[in-house]
Amino acid sequence: MTKGRMEAFSDGVLAIIITIMVLEIKVPHGEEFTDLVPLIPVFLSYVLSFIYLGIYWNNHHHMMHTVKKVTGKVLWANLHLLFWLSLVPFVTGWMGENHFAENPIALYGVILLMAALAYFYLQYTIIKTQGEDSVLKKAVGKDLKGKLSPILYLIGIAFAWITPWVSGAMFVLVALIWLIPDKRIERMLEG
Amino acid sequence: MTKGRMEAFSDGVLAIIITIMVLEIKVPHGEEFTDLVPLIPVFLSYVLSFIYLGIYWNNHHHMMHTVKKVTGKVLWANLHLLFWLSLVPFVTGWMGENHFAENPIALYGVILLMAALAYFYLQYTIIKTQGEDSVLKKAVGKDLKGKLSPILYLIGIAFAWITPWVSGAMFVLVALIWLIPDKRIERMLEG
Amino acid sequence: MTKGRMEAFSDGVLAIIITIMVLEIKVPHGEEFTDLVPLIPVFLSYVLSFIYLGIYWNNHHHMMHTVKKVTGKVLWANLHLLFWLSLVPFVTGWMGENHFAENPIALYGVILLMAALAYFYLQYTIIKTQGEDSVLKKAVGKDLKGKLSPILYLIGIAFAWITPWVSGAMFVLVALIWLIPDKRIERMLEG
Amino acid sequence: MTKGRMEAFSDGVLAIIITIMVLEIKVPHGEEFTDLVPLIPVFLSYVLSFIYLGIYWNNHHHMMHTVKKVTGKVLWANLHLLFWLSLVPFVTGWMGENHFAENPIALYGVILLMAALAYFYLQYTIIKTQGEDSVLKKAVGKDLKGKLSPILYLIGIAFAWITPWVSGAMFVLVALIWLIPDKRIERMLEG
Repeated sequence: MTKGRMEAFSDGVLAIIITIMVLEIKVPHGEEFTDLVPLIPVFLSYVLSFIYLGIYWNNHHHMMHTVKKVTGKVLWANLHLLFWLSLVPFVTGWMGENHFAENPIALYGVILLMAALAYFYLQYTIIKTQGEDSVLKKAVGKDLKGKLSPILYLIGIAFAWITPWVSGAMFVLVALIWLIPDKRIERMLEG
Repeated sequence: MTKGRMEAFSDGVLAIIITIMVLEIKVPHGEEFTDLVPLIPVFLSYVLSFIYLGIYWNNHHHMMHTVKKVTGKVLWANLHLLFWLSLVPFVTGWMGENHFAENPIALYGVILLMAALAYFYLQYTIIKTQGEDSVLKKAVGKDLKGKLSPILYLIGIAFAWITPWVSGAMFVLVALIWLIPDKRIERMLEG
Repeated sequence: MTKGRMEAFSDGVLAIIITIMVLEIKVPHGEEFTDLVPLIPVFLSYVLSFIYLGIYWNNHHHMMHTVKKVTGKVLWANLHLLFWLSLVPFVTGWMGENHFAENPIALYGVILLMAALAYFYLQYTIIKTQGEDSVLKKAVGKDLKGKLSPILYLIGIAFAWITPWVSGAMFVLVALIWLIPDKRIERMLEG
Repeated sequence: MTKGRMEAFSDGVLAIIITIMVLEIKVPHGEEFTDLVPLIPVFLSYVLSFIYLGIYWNNHHHMMHTVKKVTGKVLWANLHLLFWLSLVPFVTGWMGENHFAENPIALYGVILLMAALAYFYLQYTIIKTQGEDSVLKKAVGKDLKGKLSPILYLIGIAFAWITPWVSGAMFVLVALIWLIPDKRIERMLEG
């Protein structure tokens, strides 16, 4: 029961975050296609954030599969993750409206980093409640993706003031790492 | 479980999309009925998009009935559909505020087309996971509606710069095709 | 299953409608309580609409209790009801921002009337699917409230251009009729 | 069934309230970090309100665990609670945009107080429906937190015009009281 409501609430919040982001793409007054040109960076930011929220929903979903008991700590670790994700529409809008300027790109990376750490902490909290035979611990394994992502975010943040397109590349790269099914990545790393 | 959460998340996103569209109908400052006149195209666009989202929710709903196993590909094909549908409020607003001008009508058609193709791809992905005895494949049958819709959208898009009302007529026609129960259409085609 | 998703979707749409209405109460720039004074009519409209949407959610909820089979017609009759309710935030905002001026009051009444008729039609559609032994038909009984409400709305709409406070009183009266549990009303009518 | 839909509707409304609050953090036009400085009070208000809504969701959730029968009175007591919580985004925005000025702080406290009383009334209504052996009554116990919170809110409201930071401290204190698990508090009180 508890788990069901936690999932339902998380689904609700994620569905709203993913949808209200589109409100940042403000309807222009003109009717020419050229009136849409200034919206291109806003649109691209939207696409990237949409994919990120899709990944979070997807992973959250798989993680919850392994959960049986929901403690107060898990509930709050989950709300803590939703908090950082709720700031994604703001940084997406700021980055898009300033056409990928240095500071907004860096802040976008910071929020992605905080969300990743919050996810990591939620995972850790669940594993602790599950004890030694934690199903989630086995499922996560070495958690290469989970450990690599914060490092790539940090590189992305640092490059925001040097070569901003590297930051963008880093954020796209992390998204791709999570989008491509695990097996393929494993083969690539082995290959 | 997985299916339940995918349905719940889709329902959430669709419910939000259908509802935030109404925010594009901005409350006018004046108190006369004439102050509402400029809102008529916005309102008509809203009605059309509301019906389209209702149709998508309805069809999504029936399609999910046949699904038993949800794979990663199905989850992402579903998110891909939701992405295009999430752009409906934007194009609805642009078309409405520009009183059905050429370019906004064309873009509205493009988004409808992309959503139709995304739906088609989701359907294809589900059928593939179900294997040879796919229940969905049987249910879909020849999928006359599904194949006719993109063609009508393309006609609608092309006519946007020639006779825009033909575009409008096409978009209304597709909606009607999906609103009228199948049996009647079949009889009409046979008749 | 079908019923569950229809309820979930309706709950979602109603939850969003009831919540985005609060966005019409725009945060004022000043920090004095006098800066809130112009918001009083917007707030009062919000309270009335909140109660109305609460009543609709409540009644929808009880009606669905009696439903076993959901047909395509029921799904669309339900979406039709949600359509009219989705316009409540707009008319609430228009009425509130114009301090209960004549035309906005009348339009508010029209939307309430259309929602009431849509509810009536949904009820009728469900009763038809249930056949002769319709549980809903028995539950509804003479449906005094359902028949009285549209009449009171019509009186309210007509008085908008004569004595607007009568309209307001009518809309409050209908809300009270639905808020007060049936038994008390029955006793009052008998008494 | 009834309980399930009441929970789902409450979850939906709470998820939307918690998420649309972020829309009050308006994306600034400039791209410098200094452009974000005026947003700091808005952000801090957001954090506080996010935590409060998280606490309400959490407590609502535990309270509903004990509920078996949902009466009309419980449904309306629940909607009454949601009404006051729906005003949180407005007062959060007013307090944040006016950089914790006296009146907005006081109103913020008033809304928190009204929500606390509404929660208290919902609790009372549920206990009454459960009769003498009320599970909720036992679970609530002496309800120290529930009785202390309104008093702290009142102190906070009173200090808004004397030393506003005391008000802020009171609102943070109440949040902490609810965040820290009960056992620790009990020990502190005993200690």
